[in-house]
Amino acid sequence: MKRSRLPAKAMAHRRVTVEGIRPLVDGGCFAVKRTVGEPITVEADVFADGHDQVTATLRWRHEDDDAWHELPMRDLGNDQFAATFVPTRLGPHWYRVVGMLDRFATWCEDLRKRLAAGQKVEVQIEVGARLIEEVGAATDAPDTADRLARAATRLRAGDLGLLDDAELATTMRAHAPDHDRVTSEKLPLDVDRERARFSTWYEVFPRSTSVRPGCHGTFGDVASMLPYIAGMGFDVLYLPPIHPIGVTNRNGRNNALRATARDVGSPWSIGSEAGGHQAVHPQLGTLDDFRCLLAAAHEHGMEVALDIAFQASPDHPYLRDHPEWFRWQPDGTIQHAENPPKKYEDIVPFDFESRDWAALWRELRSVFEFWIEQGVRVFRVDNPHTKPFAFWEWTLRDLRRRHPDLIFLAEAFTRPRIMERLAKVGFNQSYTYFAWRNSAWELRSYFEELAETDVAEYLRPNVWPNTPDILTEFLQQHGQPAFVIRAILAATLAASYGIYGPAFELGEHRAREPGSEEYLDSEKYEIRVWDLDRENSLRPLLTRLNQIRRNQPALQSNRGLHFHETDNPSLLCYSKRDPLGGSVILTVVTVDPAYPQAGHVLLDLDALGVKPDSAFRVRDLLGGQTFDWYGSTNFVALDAAGLAGHVLVVEPSGEPA
Amino acid sequence: MKRSRLPAKAMAHRRVTVEGIRPLVDGGCFAVKRTVGEPITVEADVFADGHDQVTATLRWRHEDDDAWHELPMRDLGNDQFAATFVPTRLGPHWYRVVGMLDRFATWCEDLRKRLAAGQKVEVQIEVGARLIEEVGAATDAPDTADRLARAATRLRAGDLGLLDDAELATTMRAHAPDHDRVTSEKLPLDVDRERARFSTWYEVFPRSTSVRPGCHGTFGDVASMLPYIAGMGFDVLYLPPIHPIGVTNRNGRNNALRATARDVGSPWSIGSEAGGHQAVHPQLGTLDDFRCLLAAAHEHGMEVALDIAFQASPDHPYLRDHPEWFRWQPDGTIQHAENPPKKYEDIVPFDFESRDWAALWRELRSVFEFWIEQGVRVFRVDNPHTKPFAFWEWTLRDLRRRHPDLIFLAEAFTRPRIMERLAKVGFNQSYTYFAWRNSAWELRSYFEELAETDVAEYLRPNVWPNTPDILTEFLQQHGQPAFVIRAILAATLAASYGIYGPAFELGEHRAREPGSEEYLDSEKYEIRVWDLDRENSLRPLLTRLNQIRRNQPALQSNRGLHFHETDNPSLLCYSKRDPLGGSVILTVVTVDPAYPQAGHVLLDLDALGVKPDSAFRVRDLLGGQTFDWYGSTNFVALDAAGLAGHVLVVEPSGEPA
Repeated sequence: MKRSRLPAKAMAHRRVTVEGIRPLVDGGCFAVKRTVGEPITVEADVFADGHDQVTATLRWRHEDDDAWHELPMRDLGNDQFAATFVPTRLGPHWYRVVGMLDRFATWCEDLRKRLAAGQKVEVQIEVGARLIEEVGAATDAPDTADRLARAATRLRAGDLGLLDDAELATTMRAHAPDHDRVTSEKLPLDVDRERARFSTWYEVFPRSTSVRPGCHGTFGDVASMLPYIAGMGFDVLYLPPIHPIGVTNRNGRNNALRATARDVGSPWSIGSEAGGHQAVHPQLGTLDDFRCLLAAAHEHGMEVALDIAFQASPDHPYLRDHPEWFRWQPDGTIQHAENPPKKYEDIVPFDFESRDWAALWRELRSVFEFWIEQGVRVFRVDNPHTKPFAFWEWTLRDLRRRHPDLIFLAEAFTRPRIMERLAKVGFNQSYTYFAWRNSAWELRSYFEELAETDVAEYLRPNVWPNTPDILTEFLQQHGQPAFVIRAILAATLAASYGIYGPAFELGEHRAREPGSEEYLDSEKYEIRVWDLDRENSLRPLLTRLNQIRRNQPALQSNRGLHFHETDNPSLLCYSKRDPLGGSVILTVVTVDPAYPQAGHVLLDLDALGVKPDSAFRVRDLLGGQTFDWYGSTNFVALDAAGLAGHVLVVEPSGEPA
Repeated sequence: MKRSRLPAKAMAHRRVTVEGIRPLVDGGCFAVKRTVGEPITVEADVFADGHDQVTATLRWRHEDDDAWHELPMRDLGNDQFAATFVPTRLGPHWYRVVGMLDRFATWCEDLRKRLAAGQKVEVQIEVGARLIEEVGAATDAPDTADRLARAATRLRAGDLGLLDDAELATTMRAHAPDHDRVTSEKLPLDVDRERARFSTWYEVFPRSTSVRPGCHGTFGDVASMLPYIAGMGFDVLYLPPIHPIGVTNRNGRNNALRATARDVGSPWSIGSEAGGHQAVHPQLGTLDDFRCLLAAAHEHGMEVALDIAFQASPDHPYLRDHPEWFRWQPDGTIQHAENPPKKYEDIVPFDFESRDWAALWRELRSVFEFWIEQGVRVFRVDNPHTKPFAFWEWTLRDLRRRHPDLIFLAEAFTRPRIMERLAKVGFNQSYTYFAWRNSAWELRSYFEELAETDVAEYLRPNVWPNTPDILTEFLQQHGQPAFVIRAILAATLAASYGIYGPAFELGEHRAREPGSEEYLDSEKYEIRVWDLDRENSLRPLLTRLNQIRRNQPALQSNRGLHFHETDNPSLLCYSKRDPLGGSVILTVVTVDPAYPQAGHVLLDLDALGVKPDSAFRVRDLLGGQTFDWYGSTNFVALDAAGLAGHVLVVEPSGEPA
């Protein structure tokens, strides 16, 4: 058998290893996500054989930057190095790690040790002078060569001051031979705007917003609701599809298979003679009216999120103009949406693999472009997991390259790997399983998965206690206390959350039938009238929670989440620490909507910034009380019928115990 | 800004994702390790958008195989798939995962659901017939095309038997369009022989083996010791360097700077007028004598491991013949080994970056080749972390390509990342920090790191309670009970362990000075006389432990290690399960050499294969007793002065509680 060839000299003499760079998504295939102003700490293992010193440098740049920014990485011990930078520009960035064998620093350090041991160093001084001269001889810059020649002369003359000459050390590093420097692959980082990380969503059906009960609401009516919604502290107003609704096979109230003439149909059955995905439903108003709504929302500090559902009603103009974009059956009929044996005859899916797929993909991208043109910057995408990942990867990358302020929320409640993949290919926020995690241990293990594993680097949870499709058993069966619990959890566990209102603040809990998560008299199929002024509305609680979120940076990030033990399985306790300022919010919630629950929280004081065995004060931003606590074990009593949770600011008293 | 180009059709229509393949070392840069007969289970996440069914296939082959072996992967749920194969050949292998969108299986499953719901299926039958015909039309094989055409005809005639036609399903899968199939990168797997995984080492200084006390031992004397060593159950006899020893700057007894004429020098100071790395020390015998020793060892079921230390004494012939392989100082003297301010003047290191590096590297490789030629197959490599990783990667790969039965043990007690890197670049076994892990929690966390993280895929620990360089404080201070504890731990925690004997079985514990890990009167610098027949020798314990290891496959693997809780921090409890046969060994050891310790073990019964709340019997292979235990909590009392540990066979009684 033939012998292996020797490696090339450049590889053979490459003694530094750079490995284990983190964060890292799928070996660098997908981008890590951050927002403008949010720090990113990059770590790597950098080492060499033998005893030579190594240094590590972090390089990063925006895709459009001409040059790399450079940061020295701190030595954390055990061959780990770290550096942190704070991106200031939107859009795609790169980062990489450079490891270097620092022969000059090694020589300096060795010389110091020899001097300290009282050894003769004449020979070593000559070794150092030659090292400096070699580097000088190899450089093209005459200034540098001169400087180094002078340094060598000084050294030979016995001037050991250059052991502490930082500028010389930098020059020696900068001109080290190529094989002493190893540069990792460049790794992608996407920088979004702050709202991609921290946002508070309110979903409303425009047609149910009319001030005249039972009449079809308009964009103008929605605008009239803005003071109410913004007043509660929400900053994203999310509207179900606003396009013309199909008539053929329209479903009636409570999803009845046959609609009556008065039935308004589902907004997700998109397209009629009045137009398709680039038109507005005539009963909501005109495109101008919609733009007025956008402007009004902006005046209230909110923005409008549109629901983009890539599917058609049987009446969509695409069926006439582009029959090749759909699947046709052998009997000449169109293939409706189905999940055998169920059929959904009011909806026709696109065929992403059709012969004319390229035109279809471009057309669907143009749907986003049309609404971007109108001023929309936030999209909630319906069922993205039933469309190819390659389509999303291409569309989202292209749109965000031109509009890096876009935010896409993936509405996928499917298997974890698929939800993760959608986040990897470009969605900025993701729906989660939060709605179905009710016990304290379920919530803890789920949020540990979301916040403490690699998933946190690319998937940003947006948690919803309810949606128009999801009225959970927990909300159905436990009355208002259940809504209170879920509101506190949503607002404090995740940096982004949303509610389907007014169903949420009014505690709508009637299901269509036992075992169903569908609402009775669902707004998906009819116009509802909501009494927003009802006395027991959760409006004050939501207002307070959203105020707290705005004032507390700790709640605006998904990083820094830490769970604390409790001795009562109905009590969930967790803290969040602001990655920048360090302030801490400690939340304790009962997850029992029926009975009072009391017990001890067993705090990890280190995570709270409190010294062991010391007194400290916690102030409840929700209930207003102040508690003087001591050490790690403290008593808590909660009752979802009254006070379901504490949202505590931790104020170390500073007094020794 | 320019718009992004559409992906090519082949990529756009590729709907299957294969990701998260495990095991995986650094994204596939380095090989996973197994031994012949040792199963490897490969897992991957395989999924597609939408509701189409996917299948996953594992492919693997030896580097020399012409074709891939294929195995269907089991669906574990949650998009995870797994398959296991057992390599039967030595050497480099590849494995990869193929994910497939199975349109035909999806159609079959949908049709079954429609039939079960009593729906009309005429149209769907025609859909299926066309699906079959399309695949038939695309194939080049006339037989397959015929078969498929006939299947379509049968289907149109109403023959639904083909829903259960496994051969048809296979054909449809085999001829699916290219874009429905995604093949991962091929990933490397190195298959070693069993002794790379399961080995029991005994280190002895040949020069101390003479039957005439104080005389210089020979290879012949070592051969006379074989019945003693093999009788204890060791299967690798490891010899410190056997080459001529330098005279210049030779160190005396107890590492004295000046040697007397009678001092024998350190075997690691290699090379004299009698030769270098390819010669034997004349006082040990001739090369023929060495080959006789190899043959004698084989007769005793053992093999000889040579110590390869790439460094020279000042008298090594290389200094004369290849001065360019060393570093010369400005004053014309040679650069000795040093770790400033310490100097080691009896040792000269090679300059792996010398101008003549290629010749040096080839020469060092030829050292291995010379001893391979003599019949040596196991090498212990001295201080590999002070030589470039690139050198080891090239040398070990080349040697093992031609001799896949070679085993290299890395003697590196340096930082974890460096020890891991050496294992990645090709060492088959690695020394560990075991010697310094004394408390139960230290041992547990260290072995969890070694056995339960990715490190287990490429680094095989070889644990040593002592070496000629390491007489731990624990052994120095606690007498024979300390040796007993460490022997039981070493023999049962790791599949490979070794001792520096006879210092170990005779309990040699005298340090050169307080705070030192060096032996007083170390064999490294003088000939020692050992009284192997001493009454309190640990020979019987070692013999028994090695017998147990030979009889119990669970102890021959590093997989399947599982720690169990105890309520006494001085008791360590762990089980190992044989990955093939499933048999379990449960070990309980006291780590306290001074006082009796008792407490409860809190067993994870599932890991032991015992039903909850049931009675079972454990039989102590070490002490001989049998205990009837019940449920998870059981009492244990140990005393290192008498019985330091139980090595228990678990025998579920099978009787219901």
